[in-house]
Amino acid sequence: MQFTKMEGAGNDYVYIDARSQQADWPELSRRMSDRHFGVGSDGLILIADSDVADLRMVMFNADGSQGEMCGNGIRCFAKYAIERDIAAPSDDGLTVETLAGIRTVVPTYDGPRITGARVAMGAPILAPAEVPMDGFDLPLSFVSMGNPHAVTFIEQAVAGFPLHTVGPKVEHHPMFPRRVNFEIVNVDAPGKLTARVWERGSGETLACGTGACAIAVAARLSGHCGDEVDITLPGGTLRIQWDGMGEVMMEGPATEVFTGEWAA
Amino acid sequence: MQFTKMEGAGNDYVYIDARSQQADWPELSRRMSDRHFGVGSDGLILIADSDVADLRMVMFNADGSQGEMCGNGIRCFAKYAIERDIAAPSDDGLTVETLAGIRTVVPTYDGPRITGARVAMGAPILAPAEVPMDGFDLPLSFVSMGNPHAVTFIEQAVAGFPLHTVGPKVEHHPMFPRRVNFEIVNVDAPGKLTARVWERGSGETLACGTGACAIAVAARLSGHCGDEVDITLPGGTLRIQWDGMGEVMMEGPATEVFTGEWAA
Repeated sequence: MQFTKMEGAGNDYVYIDARSQQADWPELSRRMSDRHFGVGSDGLILIADSDVADLRMVMFNADGSQGEMCGNGIRCFAKYAIERDIAAPSDDGLTVETLAGIRTVVPTYDGPRITGARVAMGAPILAPAEVPMDGFDLPLSFVSMGNPHAVTFIEQAVAGFPLHTVGPKVEHHPMFPRRVNFEIVNVDAPGKLTARVWERGSGETLACGTGACAIAVAARLSGHCGDEVDITLPGGTLRIQWDGMGEVMMEGPATEVFTGEWAA
Repeated sequence: MQFTKMEGAGNDYVYIDARSQQADWPELSRRMSDRHFGVGSDGLILIADSDVADLRMVMFNADGSQGEMCGNGIRCFAKYAIERDIAAPSDDGLTVETLAGIRTVVPTYDGPRITGARVAMGAPILAPAEVPMDGFDLPLSFVSMGNPHAVTFIEQAVAGFPLHTVGPKVEHHPMFPRRVNFEIVNVDAPGKLTARVWERGSGETLACGTGACAIAVAARLSGHCGDEVDITLPGGTLRIQWDGMGEVMMEGPATEVFTGEWAA
């Protein structure tokens, strides 16, 4: 089976054109995502036909569970579809159906090549909450970007935070019956944040686009930034814009790493 | 550039036919080995011509340094070369020139497909030593299999051992000016060992063929096994035979995962 490996800010997925082929996608996502016995990725993203948008993006996490939406993935999805002439964007961009709603992607070019994209990520839904966690309370901002996020601002450097211990506890906390993505954030300066993300179903990733949007929303509401913020994740930096009202806009890179033929 | 990803007991490398192409291989190994921005591997293995054997194996670790020999890699190397008709084994096997000497590989078949191999890994060179290490002494058996190994038998379960803390200290200890591979081992039963390996230049890997041979040699000399031992590493089990005198024989699987075209 033909596939393409792409990454956006280090958040890497296997992309397969599924418009005319079928497979056990959850199982394939588990097997292909394995970084030693498979292709190695944060999950699997399928290019599919849509009745309501230019194309439909179907995504699976590394554990085979389905995700609503992937902010870094949708930039690569657009690059894949446009560069392979599967779809052409209108002046407003490429519309992509996801389980979080229809998203519009405006590619950015370097000559004939797409190097990144700007994505209208939808409007956030907010609910701050205190979540009891092993004897200490994590002050979490709960933000839905179509998928659920729990954001916390911490004083200690995110690099030293025990994310692999605390992350699974937040992800599987009884407060979140459908589980949750978890973001820890340092405020380096107004408008400059550093963060790490624990992704529901995939563990720590090098970047998370919806997570960065959730962070930007929580940061603006907490006074840590204005309408625009740069969020540096382990795999790269995403620029997020939100005026406090409408859609969150996300801008970041999209890179094709290799194409392959799955032998297993 | 065309490449093939293969794994033996989870020890995974990118394989490139370098008989008629040149590149900055150390740099390519660093870039391709990255598990998020590259192909993802423990390193790069080249198929090259030899004046003294059927073929020559050239290997680079994930950090771009060159390795003398790779026990899991050489099984996959033989599968690659034979299945692609680059070389044909004689009745005695395929001879492969490495920086540790010439190794002979006898493939094992399941129908037309090679699924593993048995490798004559050369004779070990021994030197037990006590190495002072941060206030406690690690009783290390120093075994050279063409490349250097430091083996230690421990009582606590290897799964809980702080290998990512202790491994770099052993690897870079002043006693080993050319650095060293480091193996921690549990004796589960006579002839049944469980181990983890910290590989010089690559960090922890799921398996290490020369490391398993070094472990078998140290174990036999310590009375933990006879001539034959099964060593279970995180990525799989290798069977090692050594009669205390001649060459160490290693047997294990070899699997092709995917072929690809490097776009970066």
